[in-house]
Order: sequence, then structure tokens, then C-alpha cells
Amino acid sequence: MSTTAAPALRAPHIVTTTAELSAAIAREIEALAPSGTAATLGLVPTMGALHSGHESLVSTAREQNDVLVVSIFVNELQFNDEHDFESYPRTLDADMEILARAGADIVFVPGDEEVYPDGRPLVKIDSGALGEKFEGASRPGHFDGMLAVVAKLLHYSMPPASVGRPVAYRAYFGAKDAQQLVLINRMVADLNYPVDVRSVPIMRTAEGLALSSRNQLLTPEQAKAALVIHRALLLVKERADRHEPLYLEDAVGLFEMEPQVELDYFELVDPRTLQELAFNCQDTPFTGEGLLLVAAEVGGVRLIDNMRLGY
Amino acid sequence: MSTTAAPALRAPHIVTTTAELSAAIAREIEALAPSGTAATLGLVPTMGALHSGHESLVSTAREQNDVLVVSIFVNELQFNDEHDFESYPRTLDADMEILARAGADIVFVPGDEEVYPDGRPLVKIDSGALGEKFEGASRPGHFDGMLAVVAKLLHYSMPPASVGRPVAYRAYFGAKDAQQLVLINRMVADLNYPVDVRSVPIMRTAEGLALSSRNQLLTPEQAKAALVIHRALLLVKERADRHEPLYLEDAVGLFEMEPQVELDYFELVDPRTLQELAFNCQDTPFTGEGLLLVAAEVGGVRLIDNMRLGY
Repeated sequence: MSTTAAPALRAPHIVTTTAELSAAIAREIEALAPSGTAATLGLVPTMGALHSGHESLVSTAREQNDVLVVSIFVNELQFNDEHDFESYPRTLDADMEILARAGADIVFVPGDEEVYPDGRPLVKIDSGALGEKFEGASRPGHFDGMLAVVAKLLHYSMPPASVGRPVAYRAYFGAKDAQQLVLINRMVADLNYPVDVRSVPIMRTAEGLALSSRNQLLTPEQAKAALVIHRALLLVKERADRHEPLYLEDAVGLFEMEPQVELDYFELVDPRTLQELAFNCQDTPFTGEGLLLVAAEVGGVRLIDNMRLGY
Repeated sequence: MSTTAAPALRAPHIVTTTAELSAAIAREIEALAPSGTAATLGLVPTMGALHSGHESLVSTAREQNDVLVVSIFVNELQFNDEHDFESYPRTLDADMEILARAGADIVFVPGDEEVYPDGRPLVKIDSGALGEKFEGASRPGHFDGMLAVVAKLLHYSMPPASVGRPVAYRAYFGAKDAQQLVLINRMVADLNYPVDVRSVPIMRTAEGLALSSRNQLLTPEQAKAALVIHRALLLVKERADRHEPLYLEDAVGLFEMEPQVELDYFELVDPRTLQELAFNCQDTPFTGEGLLLVAAEVGGVRLIDNMRLGY
């Protein structure tokens, strides 16, 4: 993705309260002519500190929707470490430039007191067994806190009955946070939110490293070592594409040759349920669908990545 | 409340799928003239086996709304005892007569596979500490299961964006299930559901027994003994109305004189948080607000009741 700024069509409308957000959404939808026909509304929830991966998500949502809302809220509930929360980058000015370029109509930037007026929720979303494995095992409470705020954001941006036309409502989340995406899809299904959850593919550097705001914490040498993650994913994907046995242990073996990279997990799971699949210990050809999940530490920086198989 | 049937205006429209429900709600709202003005939509979730208490709830919702939806769904998730679930009364024909008389527009009667197409939810609502006390202490999982289905029902009945007028959306729950009402209010606040939760006062027999489908399980003698519940509530309420010290132990003492009635709890709590208030051990005059909660067993039948103080 080019970093050259395209001419901004107009600055997004910034709102800080849920009442302003609802009014702005109604206004933007009503401004679309002709009334009565179907409209589309996209929401992209973010925690700010936007990079090219977010920009790709926002640009996709921009193309697919008449009205585009982006939220920026650093949600303390999903940090299991207070220092991590406090040191999380806040780069609102740079974020607004990216969002103007990507064409957001409305940017919702609420304060803590707007989102949690009564403090921490008493009635909570429980991510259950799905939220305890993989990233949840390393970050207790992370997914419950993430769902707590997504449950709110999906309601804040819901198209009001007053707009007078059918509105297809979509929410966008990056494919890189695969477990988050599965959990949000489950929450939307289990609570029957009237929203369509959509995703965009992972953005990578030319060398294959998945984009993440944490990449800037890596030395050039560590960033090079981290490329083993993509090599390992590709090794398995090529076998899957050829309907061969996957032999995940070969991919795991690649990590052993990179002493700077400490593998946490490398698993093949059902893309919908995150249930571990048995292909990694079988000689049978791969003919199904799966999601490879990987997490590793490089110089104290935790990196995650994933790849779909069979698609 | 009279049991004489008033002439039914029209039979409610019965729907069994969420798609039919949405379409029926849109149709009913659109049928209201003139378009563009505000409309009101009420939802009364029930498990059927309707009695005069439900009828009062439905009638109130009827008076307050242009379009009225009543749902009937016996939600297995909120039963912590399978036998209790299986033996729960299903009286659809009688229920429909009551709902026609009370003027429901739409009755939503989904099957299990419509509400739980994927089986039990993986992402759940956690009623937390609020759901563990009082009734939750005797019925583990009950409130989580109740919230799981209410979270869905509130979405199913949400007015669609296509109706072209502002719609005030309300959901109705009986005051008798006080803890349920508090938890639903908390869920709506914590997840920011765009709905106004409303309640109607407890219906009582002429003697004071709170209406419940369980009352039919009592012998006449047991029903008479159970009146101690109302006497105990009134004793405290009269003191509260006079701004006297409450001396809850006097109310508890009344139960000791009724050997057929086994008291579980008799507590004064904050109506919003269910936090126990300290008035029961103080000589100070009552000047605040509170909610008296009581549960007792009579001949193996669990009865609950409550009364607001300071209103």
C-alpha cells in the first residue's frame, strides 16, 4: 500500500458521545438520495495507532458502504496489564490523517466515562472456553474485555428506525486477530446482533511479516528472524493446496533453527470453532478446511499470525 | 382482574421464525398512519402459562404502544433442573386466548432450533455477582440462562431501519421477578441495548398473595399460611412510610409463627444494585429508598415476593 496521501475528499465528522454518533449516522444516511432505497453502513472499531493494516480495513469498508463509521477507543478492559494499557500508543492526529485519506465519514472518539459511565460492567460477556485458549491462555480476561466493548459499539452504531430505508449494517475486523474474529462472530450469532461481520486479509511486508504496531519494537535482525513465522505458514499451506499430508512438525522444526524466535503455539484449528484438528498427527492427505494459528516471541515482543487452508 | 372474556378485536398474528417476526413488526409499524411520525413498539417476553399477572403486563404494554409483540418460549437454558423444564406447563391455546383479549398484535412462538440453532451459546452473558445472590444462590445458572434468551429476544424484535419513522422500543418484565428485572436493566445498560425496560406492579389476590403459576400447587391451607409473606412485607412498608426504624427482625419473627412456611431470605436491598442495606440492624429512622426481597417455601413450593420502600 502506497503511503502517498491521496487528496482528502473531506475531513471526517468527529463525535464524542453516543447521542452525537446516532444523530450523525442518521444524518449521513438521510443525505443519501433517493430515500426509500437500501443503504449500507459500515463500522470499523479500532484502538487507534493506525497502520497500513488498519488503512486496508478502512478502505475496504469505505468501498463497500455508503456511510462509514470508524471508532477509536483504547479499551482498558481488554488489557490484562495496566502498564501495557498506559503505554499503548495514542496518535490521534496521525490517525485522523489516515482516516481522512481512507474516506471515513464519521470518527467516534468517546472517553471512558461515555463508554463505562457506571464503571466496569456488572453484567458481562463471557467468551467461555473459546476465549481461554491460544491468546486467551497468555492474556486472561483479554477476550471478555474486548467483547464487552464490541457489544457496546455494535449497538452505538446501529442504524436507527427513523432513517426510512433498509440499512445493511456491517462491522469490520482484521483477519490477523483470528481468535478475536471468531469470538466476535460467535457473539453476534449467540446474541443475534443484526449485523454482518466482515474481515479483510492480513497485510504483510514485502518479505511476508504480518503488519502490526508491535513490529516497530523489533530490531532489523529480529524482524528478519521473525520471517520464519510466514515461512512456516507457507510450508503447510503449500502442502494443503496440493492435498498432501500436512506434517505440522516440519513447520515447527523451522522455528528450532531460529534461536531468536520462541514459538508459543502452531496449531491447525477449525476456522469457526477453533477446535484443534487432528491433521498434524496423521499421514492422510489434507482435503478439508482449516486455520493455522501461530504465536511466537521475538526479543520479548509477542507476534501472532495465521493462514487459512483449503480456501 | 375479571376472567370474563372481552370481545377480541382481532386474533394476533402468530409467527415462528425471526425473519417472519421482523417482517411482521415492519408491516405493523408501516400500517400506522401517518408515516414519518414517531411510533412505539412494545415487547413482552414470556414463557407462556399465562395468568392474570401476565395479562396485566400485556395490557399495560398494549396501552403504551402502537405495536405489541408477545413472545412465548420456554427457555431450557434458565432451568437448572431438567425435570422442572419438562414439567413446565405448556398451555398455548389458553395463552392465545388471553393474548387476543389483551390485544397483542404479534405473538412470536419460536422452536428451540430457531433460538439455539447451534446448540448452547459459546459466548454467554455472565450475570456476575448480581446473579449469584438471592434466587441465584438457589438456582445456579438460572440468571445466565435467562439473560441469554433475553439478549436474543431484544434483538429479534428491534425495529428495522426500513420503517421510516423514529420508533421508541420498550420491553416489559414483571416486578415480581425483582432480581431478574435488575439484571435485565443492568444488561441493557452494560451492553447499551437501544431499548427502554419497563415494569408493572405485582398483581395480588384479594388476600395479598402475589400471583404466580406456582400458587395452583398450594392447598387452600398452604395458600392461607403463605399470606404471612405479604403481612411481613406490609409490616416493614408501613414503618418505612412513617419514616420509623424498620426492625426487619419483627417481620422475620412473623414467619416463625407459621410453621408451614420456611423462610429462605428476607432482605432490604438497593433497588438498583441489590446491595444489602444496613437498615435491618439499625435503630435509625428510614428515610431512603429500598427494595424488600423475600423467598420462602410452602409445602415444597418456592414463592418469591418483594416490595419497594420509599416510593
